[in-house]
Parts: sequence; C-alpha cells; structure tokens
Amino acid sequence: MEYKKLHEKDINFLIELLGEDRVFTGKNINEDYSHDELGGISKLPEALVEVLSTEEVSKIMTYAYENNIPVVARGSGTGLVGASVPIKGGIMISLAKMNRILELDEENLTLTLEPGVLLMEISKFVEAHDLFYPPDPGEKSATIGGNINTNAGGMRAVKYGVTRDYVRGLTVVLPTGKVLEVGGKVVKNSSGYSIKDLICGSEGTLGIITKAVLKLVPLPKKSISLLIPFPNLEMAINTVPKIIKSKATPTAIEFMQREVILAAEEFLGKKFPDNSSNAYLLLTFDGNSKEEIEKNYENVANICLEEGAIDVYITDTDERKEAVWSARGAFLEAVKATTTEMDECDVVVPRNKVAEFVKYTDELQEQFNIRIRSFGHAGDGNLHVYVLRDELGQEEWEKKLSEVFKCMYKKSVELKGLVSGEHGIGYAKKTFLFNQYGDDYIELMRNIKLAFDPKNILNPDKVCQ
Amino acid sequence: MEYKKLHEKDINFLIELLGEDRVFTGKNINEDYSHDELGGISKLPEALVEVLSTEEVSKIMTYAYENNIPVVARGSGTGLVGASVPIKGGIMISLAKMNRILELDEENLTLTLEPGVLLMEISKFVEAHDLFYPPDPGEKSATIGGNINTNAGGMRAVKYGVTRDYVRGLTVVLPTGKVLEVGGKVVKNSSGYSIKDLICGSEGTLGIITKAVLKLVPLPKKSISLLIPFPNLEMAINTVPKIIKSKATPTAIEFMQREVILAAEEFLGKKFPDNSSNAYLLLTFDGNSKEEIEKNYENVANICLEEGAIDVYITDTDERKEAVWSARGAFLEAVKATTTEMDECDVVVPRNKVAEFVKYTDELQEQFNIRIRSFGHAGDGNLHVYVLRDELGQEEWEKKLSEVFKCMYKKSVELKGLVSGEHGIGYAKKTFLFNQYGDDYIELMRNIKLAFDPKNILNPDKVCQ
Repeated sequence: MEYKKLHEKDINFLIELLGEDRVFTGKNINEDYSHDELGGISKLPEALVEVLSTEEVSKIMTYAYENNIPVVARGSGTGLVGASVPIKGGIMISLAKMNRILELDEENLTLTLEPGVLLMEISKFVEAHDLFYPPDPGEKSATIGGNINTNAGGMRAVKYGVTRDYVRGLTVVLPTGKVLEVGGKVVKNSSGYSIKDLICGSEGTLGIITKAVLKLVPLPKKSISLLIPFPNLEMAINTVPKIIKSKATPTAIEFMQREVILAAEEFLGKKFPDNSSNAYLLLTFDGNSKEEIEKNYENVANICLEEGAIDVYITDTDERKEAVWSARGAFLEAVKATTTEMDECDVVVPRNKVAEFVKYTDELQEQFNIRIRSFGHAGDGNLHVYVLRDELGQEEWEKKLSEVFKCMYKKSVELKGLVSGEHGIGYAKKTFLFNQYGDDYIELMRNIKLAFDPKNILNPDKVCQ
Repeated sequence: MEYKKLHEKDINFLIELLGEDRVFTGKNINEDYSHDELGGISKLPEALVEVLSTEEVSKIMTYAYENNIPVVARGSGTGLVGASVPIKGGIMISLAKMNRILELDEENLTLTLEPGVLLMEISKFVEAHDLFYPPDPGEKSATIGGNINTNAGGMRAVKYGVTRDYVRGLTVVLPTGKVLEVGGKVVKNSSGYSIKDLICGSEGTLGIITKAVLKLVPLPKKSISLLIPFPNLEMAINTVPKIIKSKATPTAIEFMQREVILAAEEFLGKKFPDNSSNAYLLLTFDGNSKEEIEKNYENVANICLEEGAIDVYITDTDERKEAVWSARGAFLEAVKATTTEMDECDVVVPRNKVAEFVKYTDELQEQFNIRIRSFGHAGDGNLHVYVLRDELGQEEWEKKLSEVFKCMYKKSVELKGLVSGEHGIGYAKKTFLFNQYGDDYIELMRNIKLAFDPKNILNPDKVCQ
C-alpha cells in the first residue's frame, strides 16, 4: 500500500478544521511523540493534531481515508510495545485533551468519559462517590483510552478481572470516518457480534475510541495488605496455587524479589517496610468489614506459613500501605534506572506455571550471563520480566536479547501461556505472536483488520500485520 | 450464493467418516431438529450428523467448505430466535453427544469441557467441589455451547456478569475447517484481537465451538432470597435503581407479577409461598457468612419497605428456596401453556428504565387488546415480554404481533436499550437489529462474518445477514 505524504493542502485542511493552535508539523512536534516508553522504535508523525470531539476525529479520519493517509491515535504515550508509534508517518491524533468526565450515573453504576482521562483521575473521582473502578494497572498516568486499547489488567485482576470486563459501551470512529456507538449502559448484550469486545485490546488498529461507558462497583469499605517474606522466590510462588485452591479470594497477589525492592528504595529514596528476605508475596484483601476480610486472610496466612514463609506482616495503616504499594508502583521505573537500556517480556501463563517460568528465567540469566529482573502478578499468571543491557555493546545486546526472548517465549508456549498478559503486541512483539499463533490464526486477524480498515490506514503494521 | 444440495456421494462421505449410526437423512431425522423452542421458523436439514470430536467437525467443515454445503451446529435446541434452524438445508451437526467434562483444574480454577455438556450438569459437578459457575440462565437443559453462542446471561448477571465473562478459552472449528485454539487457562490476555470474545455471542455463525475452558470461582457458602410483595409492579420496579444506588450487591433481582405466578402454580401443580399481592421482587444475596449476607440485605429490605413494599419474606430454607426458584424457572413454559402461541421480546434497557418499559407494555396491551405477560431481570435491565396469541386468527395475530413488536423495539431504542439481552438475534430478531443499528454497523458485522466465512456456508442468513 502506497500512502500519501502530507502536503500543504492536507495541513491546511487540518488547520481549517482545528485552528493553528492544535496542528503541529516539523520541528514543532515534540520528540516525545516519536516513541512510547519501551517499544524500541521511534518515528515522528508528519502532523500531530490535538482533537476535542468525536466529530473532529471523524472528519480527520474521513479525509485520511479518502486520501490514503496513515493515522495513529495516541493517549499519554505510556505504552511499552510501540503500539502508538506512527511508523508510516502521516497524522498522529492526540486524544490527551479529550479528557472530560461526562457523567456519573449512580442508578446504573456507570461512568461516561472521554478517552484522555487519566487512570489516577478515575479512581479519585469515583472513590469520592463511594464507587470503585477495579482495574489497577501500575501506570496511573495512562489514559483510559490506552487502557481499553491494550485491555490493561493490573494488580486486581485476580478478583475483579481486566479492563474489558469494565467497558460497557464505546463510541468509536472507524477507519472510514464513520461513527459507531457499541454497547451502552446495558448490563447484558446479545445483540450481534460484540464489536465492543473486539475493539478492547485492538491497540488502536480497528477504530479510535472517543467515548467510553465504564462499569463501576460499590467501593469495598476496607482493605488490608499482607507482606509475606519467604526464604526464596520458588517457595513464594509455589504457594500461590495453594492459595487459589484454598478458595480464598484475594484482590491481588504480587511477587517481588529483594533486588527489585532495593532498586525501588533507591529510586524512590524511601524505605520498604522490610528488605531482609530474598522474596516476598504481597497480597491484598478487600471487603465490607474487618471481620469478613480477617476470615479471608487468616487461612491464607496459615497456608503461607505452612509453605515456609518467614513471617506475615499485616499492612493495615494508610502509611504502611502507601510505603508498600508506592514501591510496587515504581518497580518498572526503578529497574529501568539501574541500567542503560532494557526490554520487557509480558507473558501470561496458567497461574500454576508461574514458578516454573521464573525459575527458567533465572537459568537464562546464568546461561546468557545477562541481568534479568522480574516481578509481577503471581495471582493471575502475568509476569513482567526485564532483560537489562547494562554495559553490553550494541551488537552483543541485540544478539543476547533476541536469543533470551526467543527462549522465554518458547517456554511460555510450552506452558500454554500467551505472548502478552496486558501490555499488548504493538510493533515490538509481533514476531512472537506470529510464531505462537501460526498462519491460519494470523490470517484470520488480518481479515478482521480488513473488515474494519479496507485501506489499512489506521495504525498500520501493528499487532497482526 | 448457490449452495450445493446433498447427493448420495456427500452422504457416503459422512457415513464413511462417522459410521451409519450417526448419520440421519430424510424421514430418519426427527422433526424436533427442524426448529427450536420459539423462533417461529422450521426447516429440516438434508443430513443430521452426531459428532464426537473436534477432528470430525473439522473434516465435515472442510468437506462442506470445498463443496459449498451449508452447515448449522446444534446443541439442545432450546434457543428462542431460530438461530439453530437450518434454513438453507445442508448438514446439521449435533454436538449433543460431545458432552464430556474433561478436566477440573483446581489450581487454575478452570473447568474444561465439551460443548454438549448441559448447564444443570455443570453446576452439579462444580458445586460438589465447592466451586461455582455463576451464569444461571433459566433453561438448565441448554448446552454450554449454546450458552456461549448466545452469550447467555441469566439471573446472577447483576453481581457476576454473563457467560462471556466466564469463558477463558475455546477450541473453534472455522468455516474453512481449520481449527483454532483461542485464549486458554490464562487469566489475562492482550495477545491480538480477542477472537474468543467475538465467538461468544456469535450464534454459531463464525465457528463451531468444540471445547471450552470456563472460569470458576469459589462457591459462596451461604445464600438467601428475599421475596418482597408490592401493591403494584411500578412500585416494585421503581425500587430497583434505589437498591443499586444504595451500593448493595444482590446476586439477582427478579420481578414477577401475580398472573405469571398463578400460571406457574398451575403449570407446576404446586403453591408459590405467597400469591396475594399484585407484584413481587425476588432478590438473592450470597456470601461466606450469615452475618455478611444479613448486613447486605437488611438495608435493602428497609429500602423496599420505605418504597411501599407490603412485607419482606426471608427465604432461607432449602424447601422455600426450591418453591420460589422452581416457579421462577418455570415461568416461560407456564406462560406458554396458557396460550395457543406466543412470541418474545428480550430487550435490555439501562436498569433505571425498566419501569418505564414495563409500563409501556401495559399500555400496548390495552391499545392492541392483546395479552402481554412479562417477567425478568429487573437488576440487569433485561426483560422477557411475551405477546400471547390466545384465540386470534392467523392474519390478525401476525398483524398485531408485528405492530406490538415494532412499538416495543422502538421504545427500547428511545430508552437506549438493545434488541437482545441474552436470547440473541438468530433469524427472528434480525429486522429489529437492522433497524436499530443502521447500515454502517450491519455492514461492519457482515464484513466480520466474511472474514471468518468467505463462502458464507456456516449458519447463513442469521444475525446480520
């Protein structure tokens, strides 16, 4: 497909539509817009535009469709796989200024909002009304539009599920410029193919979300965290399937190792409540009364102790919770700060296979003589494994990274895992997706992409292309 | 599209593959296979086959694809919109004998099973292991394959969500005969477009499900139902948004009217605990202790009394629960038994619009001088409204039914509802879907259908066609 390069005429169209203040070209485009947080590729768009309405997005898409101009939508740019990088140039539509909360409907327990609203603003807003938006990805400055597009998961997936489970309705601008309303405030829906569920997790390749209706639940009145030190990571993680099997319902089960905690302490300049053990599980329980939660966690604490935990620290004051969870929230940045460059593997495996996978990454660390750090969601099987460049030369780094990744994704397939639990495929993980899914599966996804985008102008060369 | 009629050669292919015992043609096909429970159309397939494995389905689909033969999959045939009726003839694949539970994985809380397993068997099996499969549609003799294909909802959607939320992975035979494994035992998944979510609710038009991995949750230790009589239906239903707003978390909120209860009493030959009031709400609460549940329902009981409820009956013995819920489960059949013929409207509206919709159906009853009965899921906005033929002549019945339906679906659109909450579109509700969604939306769905089924041989002329 030959795409049209932007000419003066095209820029003038954009300026006429949006005004000069919201159209940027050439050196006026900040370098930040050429990349995301970790995708490993960069390219500036030919034009960056800031939109304020569905209508504007629709008009731009219609124009781009008629003129064969590639378009990429972008929120906060906090992605990790290059999904929002405009690798074919063209127009980048920033949705960051479409950031209004439009309606809280307490009778239907829904929140209607624009895609540029930040995660941290959602929780603040709804919790002030005693309501709860459960998805809780680490990156709080991500936009809800980005979260829907990656079907972000976060810590609370164990009990509450992922972003898709909380999207009731969407307004979507299709690659043709047409506007669809899919779903709505309704709780059930068996009215044709679920376009809503297909858009969730499609990484900006099937349509541009300009409005979302989220499902809320009542805010649990109490929550408590348990920080549980173990002599080693294997013992810690091996305990998790036993917790699940015990029919406890923790909100989150995270695992962490001493070296990642030390990195976070240094990065944040503040102490973690305990750093003397080699490995930790961090569990949260929520509910509506202290008694209800206590019943739930007492049994889990006993299981952990039986499985060799050194102690069980109950974290119930706001101060201690903040110390623990702010460290957890900073892990990615903290690990990044200890090295020159890194790349991430975001596999998800059945949760009784987490220990086996982490053990394997330790072996790879030895085998390839490269630093590997991991942390993640032991309770839902989603791992974040970071391969660190440190002082390696460019060529050696690329070679080692490629080999280590190959081994890890192969192992994930063996364990019946999948390439990405929550960060998506974007540009960076395409090869691994292709390898795992094979031709028939990828061809079907490409057919679906064409069903939405016959000219292939919306975020081309991503996910399945 | 010209489909091939089955010849001796094609029948021989099927017999060679499956043996004579599992291939039926002509008069050997029971009339039951020509229709479902309420779809209003009937047509026998040219051949009915009973399959036992994914491989068999794949081989039949491959043959049908090569030879342009239409294929329809069927479970128990309990559908209500004609989705499994082979309106183009061809081959009907019965999955009823693929009914094995394959694996309960207590470490990952998943149940792997074949599509022909009946709902009633799932609950029996998992509850014996202290586990819970929350979706709870009224028709317990439906297959899980059918439930996934309609994205069935049921009573407990208020708290637990719908079938799609409990499908983790599927094995799907595509219309080309190719076999895909989508999803798996993993809790999170951001690995390409969610084919799994698209297959759920696609009513057998995109692929044939031959295996499913379901998500289970721990079985709540206690549950209690409240039967709450009101002077009239409007007062009853108007109370529901106030319950939702109060942040209570009932498992189910059903509404029912005296006349439907009387029909159920007659149909079952047993008494409902109370039939003296005009309208009732039936609520369920579940949890892990009596105290936890009591806290939850006490406030709700008070809200109901404040809103004019006559009394609050607590239904906590097995015997009383059985009396109430068996009546609720028999409503459809009971209403059906009171008339000569009926058709159903399964709209879903935002839950604070249920009262307005039901009131409108009462007006239609007067206006068109036709009996209309309704019951349903007040807590999730999904109504089942039945228009009864009684003694009307064929022509008058068709005319009135068509006019009443037109009014009801128009009203649903006004209230931002959707055509189907849980029974699907199939053949019977296509017009209403087309009217609501408009050309662009339907065209997109048709493009998706073509992405899966370029020759349009799998369950043609359903949903969006």
